[in-house]
Amino acid sequence: MEKYISVKELEDAALEKLPKNARDYYKSGATDEHTLAENRRSFQRLRILPRCLVGVEKFNLGTKVLGYEVSMPVGISPSAMQRMAHPDGELANVKAAQAERVIYTLSTIATSSIEEVAEAAPDAIKWFQLYIYNDREVTRELVTRAEKAGFKAIVLTVDTPLFGLRRADVRNKFTLPSHLKLANFEGHLSTKIHATGNGSGLNEYVNNLFDKSLTWKDIKWLKSITKLPIVAKGILRGDDAVKAVEAGCSGILVSNHGARQLDGVPTTIEALPEIVEAVKNYNVEVYLDGGVMTGTDVYKALALGAKMVFVGRPALWGLAVGGQAGVQKMLSIFRTELEYTLQIAGTPIVADITKDMVRHEFTYSKL
Amino acid sequence: MEKYISVKELEDAALEKLPKNARDYYKSGATDEHTLAENRRSFQRLRILPRCLVGVEKFNLGTKVLGYEVSMPVGISPSAMQRMAHPDGELANVKAAQAERVIYTLSTIATSSIEEVAEAAPDAIKWFQLYIYNDREVTRELVTRAEKAGFKAIVLTVDTPLFGLRRADVRNKFTLPSHLKLANFEGHLSTKIHATGNGSGLNEYVNNLFDKSLTWKDIKWLKSITKLPIVAKGILRGDDAVKAVEAGCSGILVSNHGARQLDGVPTTIEALPEIVEAVKNYNVEVYLDGGVMTGTDVYKALALGAKMVFVGRPALWGLAVGGQAGVQKMLSIFRTELEYTLQIAGTPIVADITKDMVRHEFTYSKL
Amino acid sequence: MEKYISVKELEDAALEKLPKNARDYYKSGATDEHTLAENRRSFQRLRILPRCLVGVEKFNLGTKVLGYEVSMPVGISPSAMQRMAHPDGELANVKAAQAERVIYTLSTIATSSIEEVAEAAPDAIKWFQLYIYNDREVTRELVTRAEKAGFKAIVLTVDTPLFGLRRADVRNKFTLPSHLKLANFEGHLSTKIHATGNGSGLNEYVNNLFDKSLTWKDIKWLKSITKLPIVAKGILRGDDAVKAVEAGCSGILVSNHGARQLDGVPTTIEALPEIVEAVKNYNVEVYLDGGVMTGTDVYKALALGAKMVFVGRPALWGLAVGGQAGVQKMLSIFRTELEYTLQIAGTPIVADITKDMVRHEFTYSKL
Amino acid sequence: MEKYISVKELEDAALEKLPKNARDYYKSGATDEHTLAENRRSFQRLRILPRCLVGVEKFNLGTKVLGYEVSMPVGISPSAMQRMAHPDGELANVKAAQAERVIYTLSTIATSSIEEVAEAAPDAIKWFQLYIYNDREVTRELVTRAEKAGFKAIVLTVDTPLFGLRRADVRNKFTLPSHLKLANFEGHLSTKIHATGNGSGLNEYVNNLFDKSLTWKDIKWLKSITKLPIVAKGILRGDDAVKAVEAGCSGILVSNHGARQLDGVPTTIEALPEIVEAVKNYNVEVYLDGGVMTGTDVYKALALGAKMVFVGRPALWGLAVGGQAGVQKMLSIFRTELEYTLQIAGTPIVADITKDMVRHEFTYSKL
Repeated sequence: MEKYISVKELEDAALEKLPKNARDYYKSGATDEHTLAENRRSFQRLRILPRCLVGVEKFNLGTKVLGYEVSMPVGISPSAMQRMAHPDGELANVKAAQAERVIYTLSTIATSSIEEVAEAAPDAIKWFQLYIYNDREVTRELVTRAEKAGFKAIVLTVDTPLFGLRRADVRNKFTLPSHLKLANFEGHLSTKIHATGNGSGLNEYVNNLFDKSLTWKDIKWLKSITKLPIVAKGILRGDDAVKAVEAGCSGILVSNHGARQLDGVPTTIEALPEIVEAVKNYNVEVYLDGGVMTGTDVYKALALGAKMVFVGRPALWGLAVGGQAGVQKMLSIFRTELEYTLQIAGTPIVADITKDMVRHEFTYSKL
Repeated sequence: MEKYISVKELEDAALEKLPKNARDYYKSGATDEHTLAENRRSFQRLRILPRCLVGVEKFNLGTKVLGYEVSMPVGISPSAMQRMAHPDGELANVKAAQAERVIYTLSTIATSSIEEVAEAAPDAIKWFQLYIYNDREVTRELVTRAEKAGFKAIVLTVDTPLFGLRRADVRNKFTLPSHLKLANFEGHLSTKIHATGNGSGLNEYVNNLFDKSLTWKDIKWLKSITKLPIVAKGILRGDDAVKAVEAGCSGILVSNHGARQLDGVPTTIEALPEIVEAVKNYNVEVYLDGGVMTGTDVYKALALGAKMVFVGRPALWGLAVGGQAGVQKMLSIFRTELEYTLQIAGTPIVADITKDMVRHEFTYSKL
Repeated sequence: MEKYISVKELEDAALEKLPKNARDYYKSGATDEHTLAENRRSFQRLRILPRCLVGVEKFNLGTKVLGYEVSMPVGISPSAMQRMAHPDGELANVKAAQAERVIYTLSTIATSSIEEVAEAAPDAIKWFQLYIYNDREVTRELVTRAEKAGFKAIVLTVDTPLFGLRRADVRNKFTLPSHLKLANFEGHLSTKIHATGNGSGLNEYVNNLFDKSLTWKDIKWLKSITKLPIVAKGILRGDDAVKAVEAGCSGILVSNHGARQLDGVPTTIEALPEIVEAVKNYNVEVYLDGGVMTGTDVYKALALGAKMVFVGRPALWGLAVGGQAGVQKMLSIFRTELEYTLQIAGTPIVADITKDMVRHEFTYSKL
Repeated sequence: MEKYISVKELEDAALEKLPKNARDYYKSGATDEHTLAENRRSFQRLRILPRCLVGVEKFNLGTKVLGYEVSMPVGISPSAMQRMAHPDGELANVKAAQAERVIYTLSTIATSSIEEVAEAAPDAIKWFQLYIYNDREVTRELVTRAEKAGFKAIVLTVDTPLFGLRRADVRNKFTLPSHLKLANFEGHLSTKIHATGNGSGLNEYVNNLFDKSLTWKDIKWLKSITKLPIVAKGILRGDDAVKAVEAGCSGILVSNHGARQLDGVPTTIEALPEIVEAVKNYNVEVYLDGGVMTGTDVYKALALGAKMVFVGRPALWGLAVGGQAGVQKMLSIFRTELEYTLQIAGTPIVADITKDMVRHEFTYSKL
């Protein structure tokens, strides 16, 4: 692991190692992948304005999210079917999160079950990502099991009435490898994804089973079946953020689903300020994922109002390269980069990272 | 056909397949082709801002144009001499439009006649693109025949006092292959395009025969010879759009003629908002063509006020690759991409696609 | 000549044909050549907004400059030592200008004399570009001879206290080939440029002989020795344009000396609007050169207030490729492109090309 | 040396010549090196607006810094361990500065001692760059020795609570070659940098020995132990500049440490105007380093309010290529380019270079 110094190097190694079906599934964005590239580039358009000589001998990356302490403001976003990346899949990932004391978010469409994950890492702070199925009993059972297994929040994906159009998956007629199954389900719900047709098997699965008629009113139903706080994942508009809070959500995860849903949407760092502004008078936490690959990316998101930043693909790259150790390596790269960033920027603790620490490059065009 | 997942792939296949003379004619833009590239790039500068959890189970791409229902807001723009792309030429194209229930626009300079096209696809909604010849009787006859053959609108090209300077055509001394003719004409008007000189045979044809003295007053004459609604194609300025409406046009097709007339003009998605604003108090429909290659391009144009989007080259690429089936493939790609886009954007019907769904990337530079 | 369809192709052919010493001299810009590239790119940032259906049957490129009629608003800028490009040098160039009825500007540092040029093309409208030498008698004689030979204006270069740093010339230790001389001079002034030292021989020549102490007051002296109108060439600031007019100049040539003097200055199309605005209440004509390679470039400059556009390198490329015929080819390419542009833009005569015909691409970022 | 015409060529030659360990150390920037590239690019976004005909026969590059006359407004920034570039290291560098009458700044972490440097170039204007060690007696001794040896200012680095993360150094496990030592120290402080661990030996050295608890109050202590003026190096914010002045600094060196501390910070030419504005009512000089490679870069910084510009890497490239002669070559390139720039820009003396001589390219987008 020692030779990996940046997340980019882990990505390169993982892309070389993964079989085509999984590699394409993990790396693809929607259609032309313009947003996939912009997710990265838009971070580079922001400048960090370091403060000098502030005394940084007592720096500290720790922060608190939904009341729980974590070792740094970087957590793991949900991603589906992690056993495609490594035999240990979700279990390796959650153990890495436990070891590094960061949040792990388990996908509904995981290849390890809620209970397996809970057992593998009982001390990790675990969140459960939820897709709402047409069959509400299926949904209710997922939520109940997650709560019972000690998960601390429900991350409701709100940007997915259907899965985005990812051309490589259509071309590959993507299906879950036959030795794996969707472990949170029994029977056809766990294996239907194998059924091949024209195009992506995953898209067929989703289109058949997910509830497209969902509205903000359904949050009420969700709150009726769980006491866990609800995080709305996939918000890109200020008015939607307000709707989420008023519907009872405790957190907003600003996300464009890794640029996998709709090409041409705002990057998440573009969308963040408007959303933070929209909900500033509410008691809600705002998070961000999408395109985060370095400690300075994390820093910029925090400065613009995110309480926490999540990373999805980086965990997959770490997982593919070295299982649990690979994911821990990825997290330790972020930790190191954040330690350097907070100290050099002169904001030794997370609470110091205020909005005036960041500026858009365009503001330097006004001579 | 199954292997083509994007319009870009159809384009690549077509460019490989077409003979040089036709390929260059279809793909070229005016002089330096800067606008040709910008037509694409300027779509990418716009962001779609999806709404979450709106309930999209009843999405519908259908819309109505000049009173006629179509299955989606994508139609086929006129392009000349389609038998250069495929032996079935315009007939394959119009049959595809009929099968997919979208508008087909026949060019004046077609290699199939008005009557052949009408007979091939009696149920298609057909529009007729008109160039006005110096010989007004020739023009009158074209319009009369189109009306009689059941075409539903006259699309008057207003940006072409002469054809733009396309260097490849000059270099190729472009002429229509000798086994083809301009099928809407008899005698020299149908074959004069074969006469070679220095440079493009088409440009010579146009320069000799088209009426350069046209003004907005001539719309009055055109209305005196037909009851069909008139669409002005090639508008790029708000003041011209007003002139078109006040002259009696029912539709404005914002177009830069596929970047083929004058290099350096605005892209159509750039020009659209000003034109929509200029005619907002008139009873007129606004359309757009130029550089449209994906469902999100279509969506952006609709959000900025277009009632319908037309595609020209994509139909030629489909035609070259597979005749009618290729054009249908092209249309089905747009349909699929639009279905994904409308649902994921949270605007399940066309009327939901309002201006606030789209924003310029530059608006995210204001930190 | 027929195979050349664009000025770019003439350039490519010329660069292949010219010996290194001359090629580098002609094509180089100052130091990093950033402005050399920007001179081209900044034209592409402007959009032309065509008007439709205005009736363009009577288009006309003719215009009048300092009272003289020319066939189009494109003239030939001065460039030094043209016999390096072709044995006929300045004589071929001025004959081409005469044949095409455009202005030719002869350089002080020419390889053909004032009198030779006048005799070669007695009917051409000729301007004389002037460098002021330390020896004012030398200068006076140049001006007197030009006036006597029928030149119609003195183009005083105001941006050259010394020649810019062009690295290739330094590297090549540029000197005039030994069979050529500076034909406007006798004795050491005609041959001193051959003396080699370290670096560019031309720079040494200029640094030794040109008057660095010149100020706007010296225009008064110049007006005392000639009745010809004076054009100030090399202005990039509005306040300098006002000084030029108040000093008695009749024309302002907005120029960055082909990006050869100082890297990082504004491109000429960037500088033009401010200068036009600054002198709008004076009786003065404003021209532009720099980076002009197509008819739409010319058009954009006219729309922003230039009365005439000049081209320097394009004449050298034509000259190198085919002597007089090559220069005429170059001019005919501009003529053709302008004919297309004026007609398609709906501004059939030069006076129609008003400011509202052009807009910066940035104005389309305001959604 | 004669063949080198630009600093870029010296850089290319040096990069070819240097061993990997030193090359990577010198050329690297922090993490993704985005700021390293932007440091260069942001100079190119500024335009110089030359004045014509001002009379430049008496141009002069001389200026005064902290009361001392120098031959041009370009000095040498501190860089560590210069004997890695050439056996003569700091001694060659300071002799070049003496010969060219520009300021030389010696690094705390030098491979030649304060006294050796002073003896090598007694007439040079020398500044001493200071890192404050945890052991204040070590620090006090450095300052006292520098003052005694005739150095004229203390350049306190304020942006380095720890050294930035430079990936190549981590990969190379960078250490000082064993035949060299940190010559300003005795015992472990001079050799500890050889101790290898995981990652960069330099970073370990710095993290162990430098005082991270420094605040602006410590300037007071520094002023208590020296009469030399203090320059704060590494300021990127206006408010920090004010703090520096109010703490007693006589100069502000706007610097991002050659883009080596934190990727994503403003470039120095971006940060400069805000800082100049912030301290305009104080008696303080403002300088700049970072990305300066040409005379026009220097000019732009002066126009935006810098009193002097410093170059770090260019001195290393010159040193690597040719020792003292190489550094002098580098300085003479800047001198020549500045001579051309001041004359052609029509600002023959440094005091003429006012703010209105420069404008951002974006200001030309307002048509």
